[in-house]
Amino acid sequence: MGAGASLDLVPGVLAGEIRAIARLLTRAEAGDDECRPALEAIFRHAGRAHVVGITGVPGSGKSTLVAKLVAEIRRTGRRVGIVAIDPSSPFSGGAILGDRIRMGDVAGDPGVYVRSMATHGSLGGLAHGTLDAVDILDAAGYDIVVIETVGVGQDEVEVARAAHTTVVVSAPGLGDDIQAIKAGILEIADIHVVSKSDQPGAERTLGDLKSMLAMGPSSVRSGDWQAPVLASCALSGEGVVGLLAAIDGHRAALDACGAMAARRADINARRLFLAGEGLLRDAMSRQQDGRVGELIALLDARVLGPHAAAKRLLADIRDADGG
Amino acid sequence: MGAGASLDLVPGVLAGEIRAIARLLTRAEAGDDECRPALEAIFRHAGRAHVVGITGVPGSGKSTLVAKLVAEIRRTGRRVGIVAIDPSSPFSGGAILGDRIRMGDVAGDPGVYVRSMATHGSLGGLAHGTLDAVDILDAAGYDIVVIETVGVGQDEVEVARAAHTTVVVSAPGLGDDIQAIKAGILEIADIHVVSKSDQPGAERTLGDLKSMLAMGPSSVRSGDWQAPVLASCALSGEGVVGLLAAIDGHRAALDACGAMAARRADINARRLFLAGEGLLRDAMSRQQDGRVGELIALLDARVLGPHAAAKRLLADIRDADGG
Repeated sequence: MGAGASLDLVPGVLAGEIRAIARLLTRAEAGDDECRPALEAIFRHAGRAHVVGITGVPGSGKSTLVAKLVAEIRRTGRRVGIVAIDPSSPFSGGAILGDRIRMGDVAGDPGVYVRSMATHGSLGGLAHGTLDAVDILDAAGYDIVVIETVGVGQDEVEVARAAHTTVVVSAPGLGDDIQAIKAGILEIADIHVVSKSDQPGAERTLGDLKSMLAMGPSSVRSGDWQAPVLASCALSGEGVVGLLAAIDGHRAALDACGAMAARRADINARRLFLAGEGLLRDAMSRQQDGRVGELIALLDARVLGPHAAAKRLLADIRDADGG
Repeated sequence: MGAGASLDLVPGVLAGEIRAIARLLTRAEAGDDECRPALEAIFRHAGRAHVVGITGVPGSGKSTLVAKLVAEIRRTGRRVGIVAIDPSSPFSGGAILGDRIRMGDVAGDPGVYVRSMATHGSLGGLAHGTLDAVDILDAAGYDIVVIETVGVGQDEVEVARAAHTTVVVSAPGLGDDIQAIKAGILEIADIHVVSKSDQPGAERTLGDLKSMLAMGPSSVRSGDWQAPVLASCALSGEGVVGLLAAIDGHRAALDACGAMAARRADINARRLFLAGEGLLRDAMSRQQDGRVGELIALLDARVLGPHAAAKRLLADIRDADGG
């Protein structure tokens, strides 16, 4: 594949052509160096979409809720892209083939584009690749890009770091509310949803969340925004209209109070760090027999310390890539 | 504090003086830039200790087992340093003050040095600081340095990456054997221990582990070594002598087949990456108002892509630190 192959896809992506989008997403997920210039070009055209992270523990009913939310977004005439990192998502691979019913009205709708990402079982899996996928859908003109993930602590934090608006879905009686709080949920959620509002214990979970929010710090990343606690019943569709209103309201509040600029800067700071980490990782894997091998040998011989060796490695990355 | 303050501690650490060790450990944990030259010097004097990672799920009885193992190591005349990352460790802060009984014979023994590390609730907490602490105890002359941690997936993998020998403790009836396997336990363990061998279900857990090991890949990091599955009862002390024999045997096997060199290189490759990541992190936090702020502004304006911005950042780190 020539150096221009992925770059050639960029005009198609910007025009919203499904085939170009799909191909670039596949290459981005593979982490090919070859598509880096294309992704850089895509990044420069992205920045218009409202990026919404939706996370929740397994069993919270999040996946069904997301399906209903997507249908509601479509009802308002907006196009929506979904990056599904949760293997239980109705939008992820297996389900698309086997369980179209859960996708409901949006199956086959050209205004919905779904990409499921493999996490490769690693916690860092979310960061690398997901952000590129969000950019691609953003640049392709989707108005809202949803990052859907299953809550396992670190991943939730990563979603919040990548999104303008973070929705955390809880369910009554799951018994891990306390754990969720320990993982820092209160700080990362811009909107709380208690799903399965028809089930026993829903009122109590709603009340618990509200009192904890009253005691805890308000979302430092959203200005004066007070994270609402919404009830929903994904099966009946109750609360879905209110959820979309809250999502839109959060964006409007960020824009109004100037917090959106700070949040964009946070997201881009994270991107800068992850890109730097990616450069390091690439250098480590590519040069194991060359310069990196030499540095490791110097560490093995205890001639050099890790800090000094890392500085030399960074210098090499710069020189090798020509700035 | 002058630039030489931590460097002045190095001769004391190398002479095994407790006060110098404690002070440098505290500064290393704080992550002060000032102690970097001292840690680089320490690294160059380290490399003799046998680094043993011991991990296990909460409730596995690992902590009691480690206490017995430490007493057994002392019985063979060797000095042992412990880096306890598990808050339930008998060696960690609270327990040292409140529960000396669990430490048994080794409380007050000058041949045992214990340092508990805060993980700061982050999964990456293990990597940063722990490796420096291991170096300090290694350079101070402890024959065996134990890294004790509680198993939560990613941390186990980090322990295995930092240790020459990794011990994974399971217990009968915890019901998360399957989860442990998913987290990659089979690959990282050089030695399996099933604790609480007096309890119902211990035979079955032993059998399960053995059959799974027979099916799975052998430890790729230890040459021909076949990870043994040992039974122990920490309360009675049963199996502790055998565990130390297995730990010593693993090191001898690594040395004999030449796999130790590869493992040391793996550990140092990891150190190189983590040190590079640390340089990046430092640059991000130090220069938020300066150069990093400029790069983020360029990303916000979509003038530059993250990859190009990260290259500039790496170049700046090199130039700022003067190689």
